[in-house]
Amino acid sequence: MSDKAPWITYRPELKVLDCTVRDGGLMNDHQFDDTFVKAVYQTCIDAGIDYMEIGYKNSDKQFSRDQFGAWKFCDEEDMRRVVGGHDADNTGLKLTAMADAGKSDWKTQIIPADQSVLSMIRVACYVHQIPEAIDMLHHCHEMGYETACNIMAISGVQEPEIDQALEVLAPTPAQVIVIVDSFGSLYREQIDYLYRKYEKALEGTGKEIGIHAHNNMQLAFANTIEAIILGCNRADSTLDGFGRGAGNCPTELLIGFLKNPKFKLKPIIDMLQQHVLPLKKNVDWGPNIAYNLTGKYNRHPRSAMQWLAGETPEDYTAFYDQFVSDI
Amino acid sequence: MSDKAPWITYRPELKVLDCTVRDGGLMNDHQFDDTFVKAVYQTCIDAGIDYMEIGYKNSDKQFSRDQFGAWKFCDEEDMRRVVGGHDADNTGLKLTAMADAGKSDWKTQIIPADQSVLSMIRVACYVHQIPEAIDMLHHCHEMGYETACNIMAISGVQEPEIDQALEVLAPTPAQVIVIVDSFGSLYREQIDYLYRKYEKALEGTGKEIGIHAHNNMQLAFANTIEAIILGCNRADSTLDGFGRGAGNCPTELLIGFLKNPKFKLKPIIDMLQQHVLPLKKNVDWGPNIAYNLTGKYNRHPRSAMQWLAGETPEDYTAFYDQFVSDI
Repeated sequence: MSDKAPWITYRPELKVLDCTVRDGGLMNDHQFDDTFVKAVYQTCIDAGIDYMEIGYKNSDKQFSRDQFGAWKFCDEEDMRRVVGGHDADNTGLKLTAMADAGKSDWKTQIIPADQSVLSMIRVACYVHQIPEAIDMLHHCHEMGYETACNIMAISGVQEPEIDQALEVLAPTPAQVIVIVDSFGSLYREQIDYLYRKYEKALEGTGKEIGIHAHNNMQLAFANTIEAIILGCNRADSTLDGFGRGAGNCPTELLIGFLKNPKFKLKPIIDMLQQHVLPLKKNVDWGPNIAYNLTGKYNRHPRSAMQWLAGETPEDYTAFYDQFVSDI
Repeated sequence: MSDKAPWITYRPELKVLDCTVRDGGLMNDHQFDDTFVKAVYQTCIDAGIDYMEIGYKNSDKQFSRDQFGAWKFCDEEDMRRVVGGHDADNTGLKLTAMADAGKSDWKTQIIPADQSVLSMIRVACYVHQIPEAIDMLHHCHEMGYETACNIMAISGVQEPEIDQALEVLAPTPAQVIVIVDSFGSLYREQIDYLYRKYEKALEGTGKEIGIHAHNNMQLAFANTIEAIILGCNRADSTLDGFGRGAGNCPTELLIGFLKNPKFKLKPIIDMLQQHVLPLKKNVDWGPNIAYNLTGKYNRHPRSAMQWLAGETPEDYTAFYDQFVSDI
């Protein structure tokens, strides 16, 4: 490719995964009504998005069905109520669900792919759960699914552990290994560093590298672009960045950036207008000072979320004092 | 410098310019009360910020003193009312004002630097105003000021014009030439491209390159970091990104990123808490869908600002339809 202005060209193999329902659902215990999930589904199809992550495959022994909505579990009948007899070939959209190591009854709850509307299972784990994640990847692969592994909270993992994790993931059937900045704590040079590490470790395996960024420091979109520039072909995003705390890389910005003409922005704008902004009146997400701080200090956003749900959410000075003294 | 993890080191020559009052003032006709401006001033000192841009040196023949506040004009007595007999050496803070080509009575309104609290005049111009800007730079330099030139709206300027502008600016006394992404339209590869162009054109002149980013696509902070990584030593920012439309690179994120221990974050958090968030209850800024679109399409945000001030600000679908059809 010429280096005159590569940013106006595109790589056809670059695929976008919208995880609005899965990751955004962490904000409302996955209590979406069917209308919303259907609208996300139709928007993904209309916008040319490649994958829609419709929820978690989590254990109903660990998570109560009274408290959590259908998209915490992704039972086949719930998905089919929304997507009917979904056809990935005709729609150009593949459906995926995420299964957490340690939180999923994956041996019993994942049915064979040819009986499911799902095309892919993404296995999420912390680095100490890699052994279970590998078992899950093999199992899901044998059930006929595409598979990916999202090693979460990577900004808090030390070098030899990342190296070890990549070494043991390299021979698994996972098609994608995703760099997950759960704390929204990575600056662009760190994205570069990690990307090159993943690239080197996975060289020759045919695996793609993915990026899943959070917006604590208003860098989710920028870091996603950065990974894409380096060669990342799987990018995660959510509508309006809907997601826990500061949220995610906004799908509308990512689709606006990508030059593949198959991607369409208008359906996303319509969806934001009709369904996401109304949701935002009741559920609060997006960067603010408290998340800036947890991101900068490479911490889970939970202390900021607790603060913001408390009695003095706008007393950022007090949050700063408490947070920094706790570090 | 070692390349192990350069992001935890710093360049002592990297200087931050907070232009909250100058650029943010475009949102309220520079009608700040003295308390606010004093608080910004004290925050800049306490936080170790290098330059505070206190306003414009604009013409009161063109801009009514009834409509516009003191910081549109930066008369010496107004500045002294707030900063007293400001001492740049003792405080570590230099004050600067911006003079626009075509909007300033610079021949008569700029007093000698040794009679002013200002240390620097930044000349802002569009590319077709470069000849006047050069006259202004010489004049301000002869009056004893540090000088900088901000070529605005650079994302809309064609290549030979940028090259020509840099060629004629190279021999001027301006110490800094600032890359100004007025439309918040540049992606990281374009920042790289422009930075390298400026760097090459200014090689051997001793001039620094600055960055002034807008946040239409949530990239202001990321693009500022990007320029810094490339060698930029002058970065503009505003508190909470306060600025026209989508706003600017947030000072708190920039100071949080920089590793020079002279920079302190806490005074900025206090300032946000006490003065900026209350202001935000009456003045609206920050990225949203309409600004995303003007940024993506490399247009002035004015159409989005008009829309958002109109009767159906949240009808982004209608804005999209009108905006895209007007392009």
